[in-house]
Amino acid sequence: MRSEFEFINHIKKTYALKHIGDDCAALPKDDKTDMVITADLLVEDIDFRLDWTTAKFLGHKALAVSLSDIAAMGAKPTWALLSIGVPEKIWKGDFLDEFYEGWHGLAAESGVELVGGDISRVPDKIVIDSVVSGDVAKGKAVLRSGAKPGDAIYVSGELGGAAAGLALLENGLRYSDLLIPEQLNLLKEQLAPTPQKGFTFQTFPVTSMIDLSDGLSSDLAHICSASGVGAKVFLERLPFNSNLDAIGLSPERKVDLVLNGGEDFELLFTVDEKKISPQFLVEFHRIGVVTANVGIIEFIDGDKTTVLEPKGYQHF
Amino acid sequence: MRSEFEFINHIKKTYALKHIGDDCAALPKDDKTDMVITADLLVEDIDFRLDWTTAKFLGHKALAVSLSDIAAMGAKPTWALLSIGVPEKIWKGDFLDEFYEGWHGLAAESGVELVGGDISRVPDKIVIDSVVSGDVAKGKAVLRSGAKPGDAIYVSGELGGAAAGLALLENGLRYSDLLIPEQLNLLKEQLAPTPQKGFTFQTFPVTSMIDLSDGLSSDLAHICSASGVGAKVFLERLPFNSNLDAIGLSPERKVDLVLNGGEDFELLFTVDEKKISPQFLVEFHRIGVVTANVGIIEFIDGDKTTVLEPKGYQHF
Repeated sequence: MRSEFEFINHIKKTYALKHIGDDCAALPKDDKTDMVITADLLVEDIDFRLDWTTAKFLGHKALAVSLSDIAAMGAKPTWALLSIGVPEKIWKGDFLDEFYEGWHGLAAESGVELVGGDISRVPDKIVIDSVVSGDVAKGKAVLRSGAKPGDAIYVSGELGGAAAGLALLENGLRYSDLLIPEQLNLLKEQLAPTPQKGFTFQTFPVTSMIDLSDGLSSDLAHICSASGVGAKVFLERLPFNSNLDAIGLSPERKVDLVLNGGEDFELLFTVDEKKISPQFLVEFHRIGVVTANVGIIEFIDGDKTTVLEPKGYQHF
Repeated sequence: MRSEFEFINHIKKTYALKHIGDDCAALPKDDKTDMVITADLLVEDIDFRLDWTTAKFLGHKALAVSLSDIAAMGAKPTWALLSIGVPEKIWKGDFLDEFYEGWHGLAAESGVELVGGDISRVPDKIVIDSVVSGDVAKGKAVLRSGAKPGDAIYVSGELGGAAAGLALLENGLRYSDLLIPEQLNLLKEQLAPTPQKGFTFQTFPVTSMIDLSDGLSSDLAHICSASGVGAKVFLERLPFNSNLDAIGLSPERKVDLVLNGGEDFELLFTVDEKKISPQFLVEFHRIGVVTANVGIIEFIDGDKTTVLEPKGYQHF
């Protein structure tokens, strides 16, 4: 069976689509500005479960996942479309009011205006399509394809929290006052993640960028594939979510969550080491280096080196 | 239970959303151009049935419904996003290849480029979100709110075909060589409609416009509501689809299909009679006149006048 990435590449080639392949499409807007745009489908019982989340969290997350794609282009979010299909039993309750409240809470913080969308009836499961656009200085959208051997690889924040939150949900924990703060923090990472503001990176010598939605191993492989490079990642440099130690995971499981967990919505980016500022040393986490070993990600654990295979999330 | 229109108005007021309320949002692009954008959700077993259509027709229709919204703003389509969720059994077959073939066939004719979207797994029913953008000269997007008493009301083509096609499908007919040409024409109107090119209207004195998606009675009510006007519609002026006579419908049923059927994706627009060109008399159908009788649509059948209530399609 072909994977979703194989299918997208097939469609891209068949119809000569030149804007497909980054977190957003970048399109010319005016003399000084490009616009970027992204779409994210969220489907009940695939991407979320109603008994695990709240309508307000879900509204927040629907916008957050797309804001993260805007951030990954180095762009500033501007406006959004929101399409939602709900069954009649959901229509009749307060769900949609609370969903829009969650969505607009994050929109207000992020400077995003809702300009359109669609509302439809569905037979059973809720579906959401979140479309967000952003602005970026002309030609300055950060692509996945600009990484060069010798560039340093950075992540913007801690990893593994969202996947640990998912594991807690799968084990029956629910967001409530009965939990300890670390558990609540991890559930919040999964249910209502905070996207990064990638437009603040425009002064940095960033050569490629992607958001960590599928998982570090898969998302770094996307950068390597688009840039025609390889990478080395050092275990000791990985920023483990600080709440992970509180929930009794084995060391192997923690490494797996950080490498393959996904949905942390941090930014993964490469920078030109020669132009780097001291700010990077304190704000971000230098996890590795870009190599000329095309398509191979080496994972360095002390004096042991293995090849890191992409094991992040795939729909197909 | 609140209707979908009541809910949209509630959200619009709660969050002071100024771009909601037309077929598309119109947003500033550059000094000379505005961009318009629309989103349309299509859901299996609500908006289409897999045993009634083909993947290729469905791809065509997914784009057609959004192109029609672009046309209704007087804009020229430019690019699109396509999000689609399919269950695993559909993923494994040829469905998606044929769907994209149908989509791209109409896209190529319409000058639309696919720039992004999303592909997701769904538990059961297919969902599609079609987003299309277009360009229009600055300040020239045609809104629903510009109709003035005395303006003439026009439709761009024949009505009732798509709804008659739906009735044939509901009665068990399927698109095949066994049908007579009129039946095939009606099924085609329902399954693979041809949207209008609204940007060619820019030289006409059009004061308001909407596409006929819900049905004439509902869509004219939208114009009346947005413009703060009323309307008179003359039965004898309504352009009945020329295939309707071949399928044995009662006169009452035909009138119902034309007034309330929906999905014809023709354009309904008002024009300033004083500035009208003779071209309108041959190309389009003058079905009535805008009045100052706010919110009331009078339906004139010879010397009998009734009030036309909106009876077009609503999801909720």
